Amino acid sequence: MFYHDRKLQYTVRVDTPNPLFAKMLQQAIGGVEGEIRVMLQYLFQAWGSRGPTKYRDMLLETGTEEIGHIEMLSTAVALNLEGAPVELKDEAAKNPLVAAVLGGMNPRHFLSTGHAALPEDANGTPFDASHVYASGNLAADMYANVAAEATGRVLATRLWEMTDDPGMKDMLSFLIARDTMHQNQWLAVIEEMGGLAKVHPIPNSFPQTEENQKFSYAFMSTLRTPEPAPEARWTSGPSLDGKGEFSYVSMSPAGDEPNLGAPDPRGHAQMDQMTDPPGL
Amino acid sequence: MFYHDRKLQYTVRVDTPNPLFAKMLQQAIGGVEGEIRVMLQYLFQAWGSRGPTKYRDMLLETGTEEIGHIEMLSTAVALNLEGAPVELKDEAAKNPLVAAVLGGMNPRHFLSTGHAALPEDANGTPFDASHVYASGNLAADMYANVAAEATGRVLATRLWEMTDDPGMKDMLSFLIARDTMHQNQWLAVIEEMGGLAKVHPIPNSFPQTEENQKFSYAFMSTLRTPEPAPEARWTSGPSLDGKGEFSYVSMSPAGDEPNLGAPDPRGHAQMDQMTDPPGL
Amino acid sequence: MFYHDRKLQYTVRVDTPNPLFAKMLQQAIGGVEGEIRVMLQYLFQAWGSRGPTKYRDMLLETGTEEIGHIEMLSTAVALNLEGAPVELKDEAAKNPLVAAVLGGMNPRHFLSTGHAALPEDANGTPFDASHVYASGNLAADMYANVAAEATGRVLATRLWEMTDDPGMKDMLSFLIARDTMHQNQWLAVIEEMGGLAKVHPIPNSFPQTEENQKFSYAFMSTLRTPEPAPEARWTSGPSLDGKGEFSYVSMSPAGDEPNLGAPDPRGHAQMDQMTDPPGL
Amino acid sequence: MFYHDRKLQYTVRVDTPNPLFAKMLQQAIGGVEGEIRVMLQYLFQAWGSRGPTKYRDMLLETGTEEIGHIEMLSTAVALNLEGAPVELKDEAAKNPLVAAVLGGMNPRHFLSTGHAALPEDANGTPFDASHVYASGNLAADMYANVAAEATGRVLATRLWEMTDDPGMKDMLSFLIARDTMHQNQWLAVIEEMGGLAKVHPIPNSFPQTEENQKFSYAFMSTLRTPEPAPEARWTSGPSLDGKGEFSYVSMSPAGDEPNLGAPDPRGHAQMDQMTDPPGL
Amino acid sequence: MFYHDRKLQYTVRVDTPNPLFAKMLQQAIGGVEGEIRVMLQYLFQAWGSRGPTKYRDMLLETGTEEIGHIEMLSTAVALNLEGAPVELKDEAAKNPLVAAVLGGMNPRHFLSTGHAALPEDANGTPFDASHVYASGNLAADMYANVAAEATGRVLATRLWEMTDDPGMKDMLSFLIARDTMHQNQWLAVIEEMGGLAKVHPIPNSFPQTEENQKFSYAFMSTLRTPEPAPEARWTSGPSLDGKGEFSYVSMSPAGDEPNLGAPDPRGHAQMDQMTDPPGL
Amino acid sequence: MFYHDRKLQYTVRVDTPNPLFAKMLQQAIGGVEGEIRVMLQYLFQAWGSRGPTKYRDMLLETGTEEIGHIEMLSTAVALNLEGAPVELKDEAAKNPLVAAVLGGMNPRHFLSTGHAALPEDANGTPFDASHVYASGNLAADMYANVAAEATGRVLATRLWEMTDDPGMKDMLSFLIARDTMHQNQWLAVIEEMGGLAKVHPIPNSFPQTEENQKFSYAFMSTLRTPEPAPEARWTSGPSLDGKGEFSYVSMSPAGDEPNLGAPDPRGHAQMDQMTDPPGL
Repeated sequence: MFYHDRKLQYTVRVDTPNPLFAKMLQQAIGGVEGEIRVMLQYLFQAWGSRGPTKYRDMLLETGTEEIGHIEMLSTAVALNLEGAPVELKDEAAKNPLVAAVLGGMNPRHFLSTGHAALPEDANGTPFDASHVYASGNLAADMYANVAAEATGRVLATRLWEMTDDPGMKDMLSFLIARDTMHQNQWLAVIEEMGGLAKVHPIPNSFPQTEENQKFSYAFMSTLRTPEPAPEARWTSGPSLDGKGEFSYVSMSPAGDEPNLGAPDPRGHAQMDQMTDPPGL
Repeated sequence: MFYHDRKLQYTVRVDTPNPLFAKMLQQAIGGVEGEIRVMLQYLFQAWGSRGPTKYRDMLLETGTEEIGHIEMLSTAVALNLEGAPVELKDEAAKNPLVAAVLGGMNPRHFLSTGHAALPEDANGTPFDASHVYASGNLAADMYANVAAEATGRVLATRLWEMTDDPGMKDMLSFLIARDTMHQNQWLAVIEEMGGLAKVHPIPNSFPQTEENQKFSYAFMSTLRTPEPAPEARWTSGPSLDGKGEFSYVSMSPAGDEPNLGAPDPRGHAQMDQMTDPPGL
Repeated sequence: MFYHDRKLQYTVRVDTPNPLFAKMLQQAIGGVEGEIRVMLQYLFQAWGSRGPTKYRDMLLETGTEEIGHIEMLSTAVALNLEGAPVELKDEAAKNPLVAAVLGGMNPRHFLSTGHAALPEDANGTPFDASHVYASGNLAADMYANVAAEATGRVLATRLWEMTDDPGMKDMLSFLIARDTMHQNQWLAVIEEMGGLAKVHPIPNSFPQTEENQKFSYAFMSTLRTPEPAPEARWTSGPSLDGKGEFSYVSMSPAGDEPNLGAPDPRGHAQMDQMTDPPGL
Repeated sequence: MFYHDRKLQYTVRVDTPNPLFAKMLQQAIGGVEGEIRVMLQYLFQAWGSRGPTKYRDMLLETGTEEIGHIEMLSTAVALNLEGAPVELKDEAAKNPLVAAVLGGMNPRHFLSTGHAALPEDANGTPFDASHVYASGNLAADMYANVAAEATGRVLATRLWEMTDDPGMKDMLSFLIARDTMHQNQWLAVIEEMGGLAKVHPIPNSFPQTEENQKFSYAFMSTLRTPEPAPEARWTSGPSLDGKGEFSYVSMSPAGDEPNLGAPDPRGHAQMDQMTDPPGL
Repeated sequence: MFYHDRKLQYTVRVDTPNPLFAKMLQQAIGGVEGEIRVMLQYLFQAWGSRGPTKYRDMLLETGTEEIGHIEMLSTAVALNLEGAPVELKDEAAKNPLVAAVLGGMNPRHFLSTGHAALPEDANGTPFDASHVYASGNLAADMYANVAAEATGRVLATRLWEMTDDPGMKDMLSFLIARDTMHQNQWLAVIEEMGGLAKVHPIPNSFPQTEENQKFSYAFMSTLRTPEPAPEARWTSGPSLDGKGEFSYVSMSPAGDEPNLGAPDPRGHAQMDQMTDPPGL
Repeated sequence: MFYHDRKLQYTVRVDTPNPLFAKMLQQAIGGVEGEIRVMLQYLFQAWGSRGPTKYRDMLLETGTEEIGHIEMLSTAVALNLEGAPVELKDEAAKNPLVAAVLGGMNPRHFLSTGHAALPEDANGTPFDASHVYASGNLAADMYANVAAEATGRVLATRLWEMTDDPGMKDMLSFLIARDTMHQNQWLAVIEEMGGLAKVHPIPNSFPQTEENQKFSYAFMSTLRTPEPAPEARWTSGPSLDGKGEFSYVSMSPAGDEPNLGAPDPRGHAQMDQMTDPPGL
């Protein structure tokens, strides 16, 4: 279960409110690289955790931290909206800068919230929980987490570039640091589980004898006109999981043309489809 | 640009059609772990690729291969739907097995397609392209790709467990093998870029001096009642990127209580909110 | 069944077309506070109505009225788009005001409709019918309706503040009035059913003896560091439904740590999860 | 900021696992009446709160409590999935009961999570944050909250009816009690703000002189063939906000037929539309 | 504006309620081939209509009719849910037929509506208004309408095949007839505008001299290994719009390899991408 | 299966990068009128094709061509983003033109991709695969395809009007030409199947004797106040399918008021609904 403190995890200060930056910050709240996603992702991974409890414990910690990040960013959005123009009136239209802000800000920051954050991205697309990855396989989840923190840190550095507000830069310098830690933390789990050669291929509990091993380490080229293998780490040499040797092949079909049966009359295809089925 | 061959990349054979398995296979087509996602993800990464062309070339190859995987799975769905019952009539209702199939199969496999595949998951949720990650940062994208192939291979092994149809098991043994290769392939890119210590923190082009380094390698515990650090790879020792030392701290607020201004009168909050703002 | 008149329920006049205001008006058409939502909500409540027919009759009336509101707003959007600039050309770019409009208007107002309304919100998010609440419980539905009309009227007053176009202000003064009525109308149903003390807790057909009454009227504080109860209507005194007395307690766990079983081997977790399950 | 305890807010015990009930419970996690929605709704209302801090404080408390409810329900889902059948094989198909479970359970409970909860509803539709209402108007938000807790309690009582598992009934008796409290709590805010006559029409900060008062308290009938006013609380007598008197009128158009201009040639309508515009 | 009658457009009678058929009928309400879509589509086309008013008038008529179709189908859903089993209890589990219905019915038909219809499809995916096509080009819209009525009639005939309930078959025989009319009606508009040769290519107001006419009537084959043109209406002979002659060509690239610039440093790609850009 | 060439199908050249035009182009990539939709639509139609193989072969060709169109447009987006401003800083704010671009461009073109395309529309709504129509009925699908190419060509001509960049106009002149061909191609299939009179009503495999023929060719007017039939192709004369004669009737209800049963007590409606059901 969960508790709270009324204070923020880290200072949020806006020196010069900017409604356009408020719109940009939404990507870090409700975007696919954002904090609602990682909050729910780590918590759902914890709540479905099976196996050693140390992993569950850790996921619960970081999932809880992320709630506070949404809080910080939502506060930052609200502060950036202080004093935002709201009037599409003639006099406003005469000031192109105001017009630009009015055209550019998220309309729902005024219309739907009266100057507060929304659980949506920078384009106003609501967060959708299909982005929460919690597969039941710990290693697969760790890579999903590294990916989330990597795209999250890229996003935060881009936001950092967009602003010269000292308060906002300070807040972002904190969030960027946390992303550094979280990348390292999920990688640490992979190392704790034995590193690449032990962890891969994920899931490592499926017997590789049951996969069609002829295709397990072959780079298959789809070039219409075959070319020799390029020199690259992924076309020759040992595989990263240490269980095979990379090769390079030009693809050609191993299967036949598919041949579906005639349509079921109750499905009411057109007569043309039923009177002349394939193979007749 | 793209070309095709009418034949399939690998044989698709269904020995005993099973409409419930057709529903399950949809997860591998239009699910978040599925093939439409990786197809679009690799292609959009290629089409937006900036930097050395060898990465673009490789992404284009594997993105193109994935189109053929959707084709194989769609064919498998259609073949599993051959002869599916469609009548919710009295005599059908008397056969509980038929009733179970009718209740359990994807209704749109008959109603919307007349016995063919859909670009949606096993619950009938349409694929939504917000799952396509192409961040412009090659390392972040590679982790998103490893995550996609890891959850994809987990899914494929679960589908393999659900069926004893020899044709379907053979097709899945091929797809599982390709997922093995693709996991290795994306990891190979990370190695080619220098491995963890060179690649992390992602993005490695942001100067770490600008992040708040006090928090870059600290595991922050949110436990209400603090506990000593557990022994784990992520609480002490060198960080995985080799640029710091893990530590463990119990969280406490570094910020204040947020204090938003009074509501803008034009936003029409309730009078109670405007007559007694915070701080008065 | 339904009929129509070619005339509008109320005058729609635009004195000075403004493509940015057209974008804003979309929130009242396809936003979560908008008219498509209430139209479908009232009609679906009517169509699923069980119990006294007077409620069904009333819902059908107001649901039908709302179709005409969508019509009015769609007309207003089209009229605001008359003469909108469409050219992102060099000469246009030289006029910052035109550029602001081009950057700020809904691109689909030209690209997808050729200057007409869309069933989407001010950010271009399409209306999604999951917002239609029709629970089968009349009291629950009435509160959903009051909430819809309350957020709807807030939205309409904000739109009223954004414009000084006399025609648009007149149309909004009508819609704001209808929202006043509709708020009152749904509250009247609650009174007709006996008011708070008879209606709550919703559903009032579930025997309260079956709920865990220790927790039915307790405000549970999640503050990490407990504080004394604040003076407020919700921490002491009789509950609003007259069936209990408010109290204030600091939360602590009544349950244990959850303990899920080991993973099913067929679900292919990682080996680490299976060899060291919790409790071993 | 936020903290956690590893224990649950209330006991979660499943005596007889039932994968179909696991599917049903998802509605209380990720459905529109569910806990993710209220958690985010109360927290976003708190984070955007402007005006007296006592409301913000209260919202933060209950929002934090709701995180623990998602945790309880997710645990209940995982426990109901213990030992679920996963094989669509011939021998399974011979047991119609197993087939019914396989057809009826949420496929992603095995395929995507390996027997754990998902942030989606009982039909597998992912939670979508457009359902988070935080309007900036406290009264409007309170009604949205009452509506959420009313539909939430209706849902919980229906789940209670579906099961005879003593553990599940006990957990639901707790959640039903909390919904009772939360309905009362949000109603208490409305009372604290002065009750219906002071709070309505929402927003009460918009001058009613600016609305078209001819239509503010009129029930407008859309019946094709007008009928006399039915006897009902909403057709005569004082309005609930005490600011008007209900009346009953048969609707007729107050506006004209809309007349949009000819299409902009650059929008490429068909020639027929351009050569014969209305009014010519 | 709109009016209603309390009676239905056509009789809705269910002789033997069937909750599984209720689920299937949802596709005709909220599916992409369903009635909410055509209702909104025809009304939005009408409300944005520019050009001769006769088209607007007609669209308004049929859009209004469709509201009544949703009403009929929603009534049919509710009637099919009468007496539906709701208990997942031990005794129910012993009756496989009941279990099949419980597993197969739409859970929200009980949990969310208490036995009434929802604005969603047969898989529980909510209707999403992005399916409303109203392009501002009358001919394009007519084809969208024919497509909607064609898939709608296919759907209705499939539903007709699934049931032997005389009441349901009668209702469907009416809806199928209306789909026949509506297909003809939209085709009649195309004829009224002059038929294929006058209407195409859509939009017919764009000067064909501005398109790259070398490619306007060429079937471009993407076969990896070119084959001679198959005999078909689309590879030779006059085009359907009478403005060209079909030809058949094997595709080859007319463009170059794309060459994007180096990444913007502020976008924080990886260092590897920036130190070795293409072309160096 | 599929192959690729690294070169583009047609030249993509941007003479003057324009980030606002990049946003507009997104509609042609991920909009409902865009290329991802037709690519998936034609391929899924091919993969589910039953009946003569010549149709499958053709669909596969054009579906494959469309992949290359997405590639071209994605390249065009990336090239239009070269040199886009990213800084919301004081000095930028002083240049209204830059501010307009910053407010108007798609924020995710920088934040999420670092200057590359996204699989979403011009408003940032991600592509959603529910727009893929593949009904199993060839004629219904052909109309869906004509509609897609008609709205697609309308969109392309509007984009053509928005720009005066010679490179972009050249690329669009190619895509517009391909849309011309594809409209003709799908119409050719309808002709090959016998033309309107043979193809309609779709599906032509359902016996018209089973539809309620009284309503098959009647234009039903929903005007509240009946008017004489307007002169139009759809109110009199032979139907387009040649199987009936159009007529014109004013609608009146053929059904009764719906009468749903009392609520199931286990569904927990309010007591008021249960104590006074309809008919008592």
